[in-house]
Amino acid sequence: MQIRHNFYSDTQTRPPRAMLETALTAETGDEQGMLDPTTRALEERVAELLGMEAAVFLPSGSMCNEIAVAVHCRPGDEVICHRVCHLIEAEGGGPAALSGVMMHPLDSPDGQFGAAEVTAAIREPSRYSPRSRLVAVEQTCNLAGGTVWPVERLLETGRAARAAGLAVHMDGARLMNAVVASGRPAAAHTMECDSAWIDLTKGLGCPVGAVLAGSRGFIEEAWRFKQRWGGAMRQSGVLAAMGLYALDHHVERLADDHALAAGIADRLGRFDLVTDILPVTTNIVIFDLHPAGPDAETAAARLLQDGVRVSVFGPRRLRVVTHLDVGAADAEALIAAFARLD
Amino acid sequence: MQIRHNFYSDTQTRPPRAMLETALTAETGDEQGMLDPTTRALEERVAELLGMEAAVFLPSGSMCNEIAVAVHCRPGDEVICHRVCHLIEAEGGGPAALSGVMMHPLDSPDGQFGAAEVTAAIREPSRYSPRSRLVAVEQTCNLAGGTVWPVERLLETGRAARAAGLAVHMDGARLMNAVVASGRPAAAHTMECDSAWIDLTKGLGCPVGAVLAGSRGFIEEAWRFKQRWGGAMRQSGVLAAMGLYALDHHVERLADDHALAAGIADRLGRFDLVTDILPVTTNIVIFDLHPAGPDAETAAARLLQDGVRVSVFGPRRLRVVTHLDVGAADAEALIAAFARLD
Amino acid sequence: MQIRHNFYSDTQTRPPRAMLETALTAETGDEQGMLDPTTRALEERVAELLGMEAAVFLPSGSMCNEIAVAVHCRPGDEVICHRVCHLIEAEGGGPAALSGVMMHPLDSPDGQFGAAEVTAAIREPSRYSPRSRLVAVEQTCNLAGGTVWPVERLLETGRAARAAGLAVHMDGARLMNAVVASGRPAAAHTMECDSAWIDLTKGLGCPVGAVLAGSRGFIEEAWRFKQRWGGAMRQSGVLAAMGLYALDHHVERLADDHALAAGIADRLGRFDLVTDILPVTTNIVIFDLHPAGPDAETAAARLLQDGVRVSVFGPRRLRVVTHLDVGAADAEALIAAFARLD
Amino acid sequence: MQIRHNFYSDTQTRPPRAMLETALTAETGDEQGMLDPTTRALEERVAELLGMEAAVFLPSGSMCNEIAVAVHCRPGDEVICHRVCHLIEAEGGGPAALSGVMMHPLDSPDGQFGAAEVTAAIREPSRYSPRSRLVAVEQTCNLAGGTVWPVERLLETGRAARAAGLAVHMDGARLMNAVVASGRPAAAHTMECDSAWIDLTKGLGCPVGAVLAGSRGFIEEAWRFKQRWGGAMRQSGVLAAMGLYALDHHVERLADDHALAAGIADRLGRFDLVTDILPVTTNIVIFDLHPAGPDAETAAARLLQDGVRVSVFGPRRLRVVTHLDVGAADAEALIAAFARLD
Repeated sequence: MQIRHNFYSDTQTRPPRAMLETALTAETGDEQGMLDPTTRALEERVAELLGMEAAVFLPSGSMCNEIAVAVHCRPGDEVICHRVCHLIEAEGGGPAALSGVMMHPLDSPDGQFGAAEVTAAIREPSRYSPRSRLVAVEQTCNLAGGTVWPVERLLETGRAARAAGLAVHMDGARLMNAVVASGRPAAAHTMECDSAWIDLTKGLGCPVGAVLAGSRGFIEEAWRFKQRWGGAMRQSGVLAAMGLYALDHHVERLADDHALAAGIADRLGRFDLVTDILPVTTNIVIFDLHPAGPDAETAAARLLQDGVRVSVFGPRRLRVVTHLDVGAADAEALIAAFARLD
Repeated sequence: MQIRHNFYSDTQTRPPRAMLETALTAETGDEQGMLDPTTRALEERVAELLGMEAAVFLPSGSMCNEIAVAVHCRPGDEVICHRVCHLIEAEGGGPAALSGVMMHPLDSPDGQFGAAEVTAAIREPSRYSPRSRLVAVEQTCNLAGGTVWPVERLLETGRAARAAGLAVHMDGARLMNAVVASGRPAAAHTMECDSAWIDLTKGLGCPVGAVLAGSRGFIEEAWRFKQRWGGAMRQSGVLAAMGLYALDHHVERLADDHALAAGIADRLGRFDLVTDILPVTTNIVIFDLHPAGPDAETAAARLLQDGVRVSVFGPRRLRVVTHLDVGAADAEALIAAFARLD
Repeated sequence: MQIRHNFYSDTQTRPPRAMLETALTAETGDEQGMLDPTTRALEERVAELLGMEAAVFLPSGSMCNEIAVAVHCRPGDEVICHRVCHLIEAEGGGPAALSGVMMHPLDSPDGQFGAAEVTAAIREPSRYSPRSRLVAVEQTCNLAGGTVWPVERLLETGRAARAAGLAVHMDGARLMNAVVASGRPAAAHTMECDSAWIDLTKGLGCPVGAVLAGSRGFIEEAWRFKQRWGGAMRQSGVLAAMGLYALDHHVERLADDHALAAGIADRLGRFDLVTDILPVTTNIVIFDLHPAGPDAETAAARLLQDGVRVSVFGPRRLRVVTHLDVGAADAEALIAAFARLD
Repeated sequence: MQIRHNFYSDTQTRPPRAMLETALTAETGDEQGMLDPTTRALEERVAELLGMEAAVFLPSGSMCNEIAVAVHCRPGDEVICHRVCHLIEAEGGGPAALSGVMMHPLDSPDGQFGAAEVTAAIREPSRYSPRSRLVAVEQTCNLAGGTVWPVERLLETGRAARAAGLAVHMDGARLMNAVVASGRPAAAHTMECDSAWIDLTKGLGCPVGAVLAGSRGFIEEAWRFKQRWGGAMRQSGVLAAMGLYALDHHVERLADDHALAAGIADRLGRFDLVTDILPVTTNIVIFDLHPAGPDAETAAARLLQDGVRVSVFGPRRLRVVTHLDVGAADAEALIAAFARLD
């Protein structure tokens, strides 16, 4: 079945030719020797963007998350986070397997939590219990529908954690979506964070890479793990050049993705088949199918017959994501295909 | 301040002289060489008691729990358990630190969960998510007030886990209390378990030790961890003899502890100062203090002035535990001291 | 100081334009969904090259090594290897930190060992000792001077390990150099291996990437670690295309690197300043400086003043590596600079 | 086969009745709450003996070793030690499995090494290599024949390590043998150590336990691991009392064990069957059998027919250990049984 309209995920964008061409002329060197000028330029740019002292280029966002946990924590420490965050759901048990840390999951419908929940979750120091050490937040929260954590709430949450001596880490896989949606600069979001990263591959459209930022000491430690885990590359400037291109050309246009998602949600909401659309604020539309109609697997399979790919998020739940490679015509195709389901 | 009436915990019993004397005549040998006959006798007795093929003597219940997790799981696996279980609350983050496993906490007021909750918590196999591997239950559940998981519910929960290919482990620190309270033999409780242990030090009154049971293959693997972690001893028969004594003399009398706890709960409930006593079915009484009165720290300190020790379980929550070393007169002292608070 | 003649390492090659251009037209997709056809093509090609069932693309050779250890071993297992192998020397303690394995180092001047040494190193099964589980070989052995393990010795060593139930892993960072030097196909070298990898970045000249091969089951498990450790990428076809280019264009020419290295060694040997050149069979020349002359740091600094970069390998030891970016003229410059030292 | 003369190991002593009786009257309490006065007394006594600030009672010497490594090191660090030390040979790969550390084994015939070897083994700080962090020494060295490291050499070795910023740990399983043999107090041996422990079960004859000492901060951290790994007990005073008894009654008599071992070695040396006795300075006699005679397994089996147990240490190597439970008559029986082999 040919996929002509791919709403499966913003991780599936194809790098445009102009982006790829930057690799041809990028100045490169051995990045492990700190000799790749393009990678260094990208790192400096992201550090500045996130209001941090330093940054390190890594092959993926998952490695950013896992390294941050490894640097901030010792085995037996505990990480306070939302139950549906990427660290718990989608990194193969990495926090425990790689860093020996316990996860302390909080529950809420929107993937967010505040100062009170953090304060309640922090344990009294004791030999018996895990040591509360890190609060991890996800901006935007993918599994809650791409919700944007309001900047003030982020800061309040971070302050509560830091006041108790904990570090704060932001999984900013889609932070730039939150920046565009909120109108607040990235550094405003990360102001109470000790580490934060952005993904180059999702809305930004790069093929490979993410950048993790923090203090100089944090990044120095992060490099130890990058080397040990095999994340250190060589002439990574060929990838970093694409990252710089993305920061120049693919940030503001995220507003188009958000508008398209809002429009799709609006039209999906008119189908009897669709119930409970999670609030849409960025580029993700998560919604449930009415029990009277086809289930999620069946619906996705039938949409695929029309060349439309969406993702199955539960027995009756689907997810649609907008990104660089889908536009108004694709949205029309999606709606038309949906109409045939109804 | 001298403690004359110690309701702090059943971990604080003093071994009676008759128990200690068993060490004088115990036949001993090097247990690491499987040459300590008294330890072997204890292991065989507990294996039979729990309906398992084999067992291993260990210095503590925490080591029983941690070794069971280590044998059943691989790094990155996930353990489904209650949020207030000992593995999460009181082993210093051991499951993540020692075995690299993620915990999947379930919530409920009584420390229990059923087949439906287990089934809902088990993840689809995927490279992204942790691998659901083990269900851990706690009989009785200490932090929920010593609640006894009904045998049928235990079995149903275990069957759901095993049907999905997961192993089942029981933290039976106070299983013998559940046996006495339920009137059902220990092996009936552990029938759907792959591993289970009993503590010799709590209600049973020994100074040191716990016994972990499972299949022959499980115990063989458990021995590897016992050796590696430093749990292997030498002439451990001096301790095992006390364990055998406890199984002979200290099981049926747990009914006295339960009756005493019920009586204490009944009388505490008459004080205006006391609200919300958790249901009392074994030897643990957890209750909250009225906001109009002293908080938990203050109350505990004032009780201590009367020689009565209880434990603080929250800002307004206290715990009272009955055991070998407290009787009717101590209960009277407790109630009298409470009356002075009210 | 401008580096005009870079003999520091074959990791510092700059990707040629023809290689980079392959990224422009590579067919790509989400590699985590097994949807990147170029990455799949590279994996299949390397699997076939190494005589294995399957392969996986990874961001670095270090990750290939560390994942292989993680798949083959359990915590507490032991890896038999040479004392100067990359796993011990250059992966930040990864084998212990990531997989909890002990290393059992063997000593020899050429980085090699045989069946007898393996057999002597394998421990009797016991609860006390680590479990001998894996033999790791390095072809060629970098720190021993790029020595080529004769194929027959490799096979004999591998057979001894496998006969005792151990797995065999090859760090083939420079396996293609050994292939060219020995005239024996890669699959002949790996015939007694359970896993093996080649690096795309060293003699092959790619900017990023390595490919790990093994049985289908091994690669499936390897993917779990790739995901967990953050080695999973997205449109990795942009890198894989360069790898395919390298396999087409940069293998046979390794013979030029070897000839150049041999020639350099021959001429270096004529200087009084140079003593003890390790046998040169591939692209690495390691040699010691006479105590009467400058030490290694000083010599390297003075060579750099002439635009020649070499690496310091000890107080009086230097290393020269030939590769894609150095030729006869660079060798002349190196020798001329050396003459000024003498 | 009944064992009447047990030279297998000093771990197999049976606690004498007077030692066991101390348990009857020992004052006890919950050691996890620091409420067991006898355990505290033992800890204070050993801390003083070893010239350290504090100490902690643990169920075994292996746990002392493993906890010391865990406190001193971080994952990826490296421990410099002798190749045949207990940490490598007899703890099931614990250093890597529990603490993620690499071992850097040194070779020598006597199990010892000096400042020069330590200095040569310490690595330059680098992201690539493991971080040199700890030097571990074993006094006496069991597998080298119970050799006593001369105090001056211990101190010189320790100073070299500490000057480079490394910590120093002593496995003092048989330190008291070294004390008696050298005539130098224990604290003289541990003067350049950051942590050290003695075993109560070997020459000292207790059934269970060892005591680890170090700075107050070290012991505080050690307690976190003791709790997490399940080494925390309850009324451990019943064991600690035996430890105090052993320190009072079983130290000086180690001289008898040493004299007996020397006498046995002297007489064994006269047999043609016996070659290469390792130098005997304490209570261990390791020797090889002549190729013309029976191999070690056969010899041990035939000795056992005479009620004499020794241990097999290699194809032609046996070990004899003297201790509390063997005397002159047992030595006569051993020699007589040997005569029948010759």
